[in-house]
Amino acid sequence: MPTDTIVALATPPGIGAIGVIRLSGPQAIQIVDAVFYGKKLDKQASHTIHFGTIRDEQDHILDEVLASLFVEPRSYTGENVVEISCHGSNYIIQELIRLFIRKGARLAQPGEFTLRAFLNGQMDLSQAEAVADLIASSSEAAQQVAIKQLRGGISSEIKKLRQELIDFASLIELELDFGEEDVEFANRDQLRDLVEKLIRLMHKLLDSFQLGNAIKEGVNTVIAGRPNAGKSTLLNALLNEERAIVSEIAGTTRDTIEESLNIQGIQFRIIDTAGIREASDTIEAIGIQKTLEKVRQSAVLLYIFDVIKTQPAQLEADLAQLLHPNTQLLVVANKMDLNPYTEYQHYANPHFSAEQWIPISAANEMNIEYLKERLYQTVVSNEVSMDAAIVSNVRHYEALQKAKESLEAVIQGLSSAVTTDFIAMDIRHSLAYLGEITGEISTEDLLDNIFSRFCIGK
Amino acid sequence: MPTDTIVALATPPGIGAIGVIRLSGPQAIQIVDAVFYGKKLDKQASHTIHFGTIRDEQDHILDEVLASLFVEPRSYTGENVVEISCHGSNYIIQELIRLFIRKGARLAQPGEFTLRAFLNGQMDLSQAEAVADLIASSSEAAQQVAIKQLRGGISSEIKKLRQELIDFASLIELELDFGEEDVEFANRDQLRDLVEKLIRLMHKLLDSFQLGNAIKEGVNTVIAGRPNAGKSTLLNALLNEERAIVSEIAGTTRDTIEESLNIQGIQFRIIDTAGIREASDTIEAIGIQKTLEKVRQSAVLLYIFDVIKTQPAQLEADLAQLLHPNTQLLVVANKMDLNPYTEYQHYANPHFSAEQWIPISAANEMNIEYLKERLYQTVVSNEVSMDAAIVSNVRHYEALQKAKESLEAVIQGLSSAVTTDFIAMDIRHSLAYLGEITGEISTEDLLDNIFSRFCIGK
Repeated sequence: MPTDTIVALATPPGIGAIGVIRLSGPQAIQIVDAVFYGKKLDKQASHTIHFGTIRDEQDHILDEVLASLFVEPRSYTGENVVEISCHGSNYIIQELIRLFIRKGARLAQPGEFTLRAFLNGQMDLSQAEAVADLIASSSEAAQQVAIKQLRGGISSEIKKLRQELIDFASLIELELDFGEEDVEFANRDQLRDLVEKLIRLMHKLLDSFQLGNAIKEGVNTVIAGRPNAGKSTLLNALLNEERAIVSEIAGTTRDTIEESLNIQGIQFRIIDTAGIREASDTIEAIGIQKTLEKVRQSAVLLYIFDVIKTQPAQLEADLAQLLHPNTQLLVVANKMDLNPYTEYQHYANPHFSAEQWIPISAANEMNIEYLKERLYQTVVSNEVSMDAAIVSNVRHYEALQKAKESLEAVIQGLSSAVTTDFIAMDIRHSLAYLGEITGEISTEDLLDNIFSRFCIGK
Repeated sequence: MPTDTIVALATPPGIGAIGVIRLSGPQAIQIVDAVFYGKKLDKQASHTIHFGTIRDEQDHILDEVLASLFVEPRSYTGENVVEISCHGSNYIIQELIRLFIRKGARLAQPGEFTLRAFLNGQMDLSQAEAVADLIASSSEAAQQVAIKQLRGGISSEIKKLRQELIDFASLIELELDFGEEDVEFANRDQLRDLVEKLIRLMHKLLDSFQLGNAIKEGVNTVIAGRPNAGKSTLLNALLNEERAIVSEIAGTTRDTIEESLNIQGIQFRIIDTAGIREASDTIEAIGIQKTLEKVRQSAVLLYIFDVIKTQPAQLEADLAQLLHPNTQLLVVANKMDLNPYTEYQHYANPHFSAEQWIPISAANEMNIEYLKERLYQTVVSNEVSMDAAIVSNVRHYEALQKAKESLEAVIQGLSSAVTTDFIAMDIRHSLAYLGEITGEISTEDLLDNIFSRFCIGK
């Protein structure tokens, strides 16, 4: 239990109507009472608001404020909390925080309020992480995933898995306690059934990560193709705005341009690139290197070509050069309005299937909605529902992966009839990994790592 | 009385731990209750805080929030007010505000919450203006002047003046009511005494404006002098930091550099300039034009010269070129360490007196504190105390000036024995000008003009 009292600005810096300074800790109420002129806060009920002035040691009024009182354990952190709502001047905010520090508070570390909420059992670790996700959320899908996690979505799934395993683990451990005696409290067939069921559930959660990560981090999508294939026109059609400079002159786009496109709540970061061709000058050559690099870093490649001028061999050569194993490909056949009878078969090659073929006309915005739908489907598989628990945190994903691997070792152990010790050890490992997700098992390093990414004041 | 309900973000935009959305108006509580899942707010006491979720029409949880309740008239605006403290994501804040608008609120205009506070009699106009000053305050002096004004400092002085005048005015008006009859309810000698006393009080307030304005707006101070006189070295010595590029090459400083220096709570904006000399190239020539322009716009000119190389005639010529009637001059004799016996008499000319002579050595930081003290005294005269009521608002200054002129007309009228009508009219004018300061008399244009400068959410 922390014994000191922390203080920080909880609202963004900058000029606004009000700023909110938050204090939390055993001395929070006394520290404010020492400088607050109004009612004595330590005589007031929790969840009440009081008007007063705050004065410094020279009796200068620093501001007229509202003090909101939260008495432990009924607060965000579980400790005594006072929130001071003051006028939104940086000068006043700074002076108030300095005054509270002189009166015994300490400036909070990033995420320290939420860390205390976790340490005081107000929320588990995955919920604490959801607070940061929620603050960072910039789309409906990201906000929905974060708020579900905040309200215990992932945690309750993980806790369920863990509880089922603990029940069995205790029987196994009991066997070990009996040592030499050849007793079997835990039925091996039931154990195998349980572990297989748990592995299936974990699989499902792990599968949701592709979507969860796409929702949280966005999907890097690169548009590539030869000069004048219509890359910038496609970007504009997707964004429905004139963002990129579209020009008839080949090689106009030298720098990569990044734009954000929201499809059904998921953020696609669309990157326009320089055309691929024999570089005619050095800057162009750099542009092409950049394109290849961008493809490597992207989840989706939109390869666009011109159905008038492009030979099937050119298409095949470009794809051979561009494709990357971690990147999903969509082949966009552009200028279909000028050559409407072009068919997939004409351009077919081993690098892509008919399902990856998307005929459009960027200039006429023909079939753009279909392209968006296909983009969306590259990250949202049919098996994963937005309504289910979705893993969006890479730390959870990795722990879950390791927990699953330990359970797979259990299955293997049961098949090869290893001793109970080994099975017990693998179960214990799996439990530990699951416990790391919710923070039932945590180290100082882990907590530091998580909370140092928070903003100060949260 | 406004009949609609307004909503706005009250905290600065940007990512922070929390954001606060404020609603005010007759429907504020009902609008929140329609989307807030927790306790019914309209059954709760004023000044209480309630945890709950906010859900949209599709029953999606937008956020977990705290709702703070202020029941009219016990609120900032005097109306029902609800403040929603949510997670500090721009996406969430935007969605919540949109939801409240769909439920019947309207986006607030800049300053509209404070305008309502004024219209509902929660504060007078000069106090409302102090709210904006307080938010903008960036130094101790500015904050102290604003908080005093917020707490009624100026208002109470003005109201006192106005009340004394009203008492007499009613007697004068009574005389007019009696029309032809030659009665005198108001003793003319007493009236003269009173008006003279009021004029003296007004004088004192008007005198405080130089300081008030300096505190609020800062003091533009320009450093000018010939190349290599030590302008940049002086700037660095004043700031005690290496901000400007100091170089031995004449003409290094081509752009003006602006820095902020706080002397006893007053902000001096120090502007370094290009040297004055026959311009050797066009860019230099522009620099000199800029210097002359900057001097015209400044309250204080620090003319610096080199006591080794400068001839008295050069000093006189420069001052003749630079001086501007609205600019106070300090003559800074630099490099005194190299020529310590230099005296004022050697350089004396009609443009300045011995009191404006400040011998220093910028490179050795000699006498810099004395220079700062003299700078401070250029705006803080001995007659005006920081503890007295200080006029810092140009609108108040102008209204007070006009009120004083009307009273001077009263004195003149009493001396030249004009009819009572004219005296009554001048008193009425004076009362109206005083009433404008506190807003007892106000027009829609005046209010628009004042509140449109506020930030949204205040």
